[in-house]
Amino acid sequence: MTNRLKKLDNLFEKNSIDAFAIVPGSNFRYLTGGNFHLMERPTVLIIKKNHKPVAILPSLEIDSFNALSLDAEIISWHDKDGYIDAFKKASQILGPLKNIGVEGQRIRFFESLALQESFKDCKIVNAHSLISTVRLNKDSDEIKNIEKAISISEIALSNTIKYVSHGKSELEIKNFLIQELYKNGAEGIAFDPIVLGSKNSALPHGHSTDYILEKGDALLFDFGASINGYNADITRTFFIDNASDYQRNYYNTVLKANNAGIDKSRINITLDEVDDTVLKILEESEYKDFVVHKTGHGLGLDVHEDPYVVRGNKNVLTEGMVITIEPGLYNPDSLGVRIEDDVLITETEPKILTKFSKELTII
Amino acid sequence: MTNRLKKLDNLFEKNSIDAFAIVPGSNFRYLTGGNFHLMERPTVLIIKKNHKPVAILPSLEIDSFNALSLDAEIISWHDKDGYIDAFKKASQILGPLKNIGVEGQRIRFFESLALQESFKDCKIVNAHSLISTVRLNKDSDEIKNIEKAISISEIALSNTIKYVSHGKSELEIKNFLIQELYKNGAEGIAFDPIVLGSKNSALPHGHSTDYILEKGDALLFDFGASINGYNADITRTFFIDNASDYQRNYYNTVLKANNAGIDKSRINITLDEVDDTVLKILEESEYKDFVVHKTGHGLGLDVHEDPYVVRGNKNVLTEGMVITIEPGLYNPDSLGVRIEDDVLITETEPKILTKFSKELTII
Repeated sequence: MTNRLKKLDNLFEKNSIDAFAIVPGSNFRYLTGGNFHLMERPTVLIIKKNHKPVAILPSLEIDSFNALSLDAEIISWHDKDGYIDAFKKASQILGPLKNIGVEGQRIRFFESLALQESFKDCKIVNAHSLISTVRLNKDSDEIKNIEKAISISEIALSNTIKYVSHGKSELEIKNFLIQELYKNGAEGIAFDPIVLGSKNSALPHGHSTDYILEKGDALLFDFGASINGYNADITRTFFIDNASDYQRNYYNTVLKANNAGIDKSRINITLDEVDDTVLKILEESEYKDFVVHKTGHGLGLDVHEDPYVVRGNKNVLTEGMVITIEPGLYNPDSLGVRIEDDVLITETEPKILTKFSKELTII
Repeated sequence: MTNRLKKLDNLFEKNSIDAFAIVPGSNFRYLTGGNFHLMERPTVLIIKKNHKPVAILPSLEIDSFNALSLDAEIISWHDKDGYIDAFKKASQILGPLKNIGVEGQRIRFFESLALQESFKDCKIVNAHSLISTVRLNKDSDEIKNIEKAISISEIALSNTIKYVSHGKSELEIKNFLIQELYKNGAEGIAFDPIVLGSKNSALPHGHSTDYILEKGDALLFDFGASINGYNADITRTFFIDNASDYQRNYYNTVLKANNAGIDKSRINITLDEVDDTVLKILEESEYKDFVVHKTGHGLGLDVHEDPYVVRGNKNVLTEGMVITIEPGLYNPDSLGVRIEDDVLITETEPKILTKFSKELTII
């Protein structure tokens, strides 16, 4: 089992953090190898510098936790007793703390309250960005998992577009795609696939409906397989039977932004610069009113994770980051197009992990 | 689209709550019909009594939100600007609030911080239990969705056990089961299915591995399809080729607890009494050391939701509640058995929604 808890050691002093509290999810899995559920039963691992980690565990998770072979002090609690005493016991063991850094985008309000009530005179601070730094740069095993997830996703997409025709519904196609993902070896799916036809494609996070595809419709797929917890995230937009000049020009504008974004994705370039490069192409086009989101996000154990490819983010790209470049245009009256690739930042050229063709394709 | 926001009206005064803040998830979906993503972009609906709801939305969700036809004031924010100004604007529109009730088990720490920073002198309180009351009793459409999800799940299980044999791995069987769920009409899966063989079955929340089944192994399935967001949740434990006397007696002890729990699940009985009835059978058996969790939970748009079937919960069962009865025994050295049914509380007898046979079955 993976044990990367030492990676947190560098973060304590520089940031004046006394301890970190980690809940089930990607950081927990990355740091300990443990894949636990974030449920109504709080499960919290508290890491204080130069101290054995303290794990607050529901009794039903003890055996799974022990299997990690992590040298931690376990405080378990049973359903019938509730969890608050376990938090108080953790506070006694760890002694006074000035602050506890938490995963602000993961830990829930009730868990933060339990920490606040049990650790007196201790400030609970959002250490999301800080903790995220340990996962920013992927090692070769992580990249292999992402590549495998992408490869399965692309085979599934390839099989699915052969199945697509006018007369089929978004929901039917989505269902087929999911079966293809599992049939080709997906261990899970990154998120409920987005399969949207015609003007539904203009809803960036829309859900598939029973809309029946017609000739001339756009058909947008945004989806991914997952392998060992690592996700693929790919978007392609196709056209059914034919594409109008408007659709072709609109599509190629997004494609131009996608290619420019990838080409810009190099070490020492800021995330701000990448987003700006992409958005300027869209904003300077005749479709400028249809821009509604940033260029992309980091990709790994979470589908959306740091670093975010967004204006204002002055952090620079470094080797081993995997980001999505996914410009989109959304005309609510008629058409949404998004083209998304997963890109590995290398010492030299950006490496495009997604291989599926981006040329305008009629299916 | 569903609009059940009025259901919150009864909760304000009795509980001295000035406003509720709801984030994407089951309550949001139940109350508004909106199925949004809980992501790095905060999306919050604030409902104050006798005031038009205020929706803080990332710009890319505006069209999806408008499709709900909800009479709400929208404050949208764009990725490049960040969200904090939108929270401040919401605070100006809503005026001073004494407190805001949040979904403590859903809203994350960073969203609660954004509320706290923007609503000055306002206390953020955990209103999880309060908000949950609106979803406790299912109407007939909700029950139909759960029944459909269960029916699909049982067909998939039936097909999967025909596929099972010694020599196959947990992961292969899990993958097959998921494909069967989708093939038979699942819109989604309630959670990553738990398929565990031999002593892995003793991990209540274990993940499938590449363990290859052998003759005489137990094989535990815990899984469900989802339909319109409503989940099935069913557990069955089988034996491969043969079962020893130890396995048979162990299995039948769990089955006895399961049947007693179902029979106890009637209106005006407390959740405490149901859990106690079930646990006593296990605790008074020769396997008393292998009890690690409560009897069950509510089932609906969330797989685990109120009411929890746990000792100490003095709330009573009422008509329309759907709960799971899922006793289990976990001998870490050799065997886990769990048998889980979904049960609808009616005016008269408990109605067992799960139909799959519970007699000890050799496959």
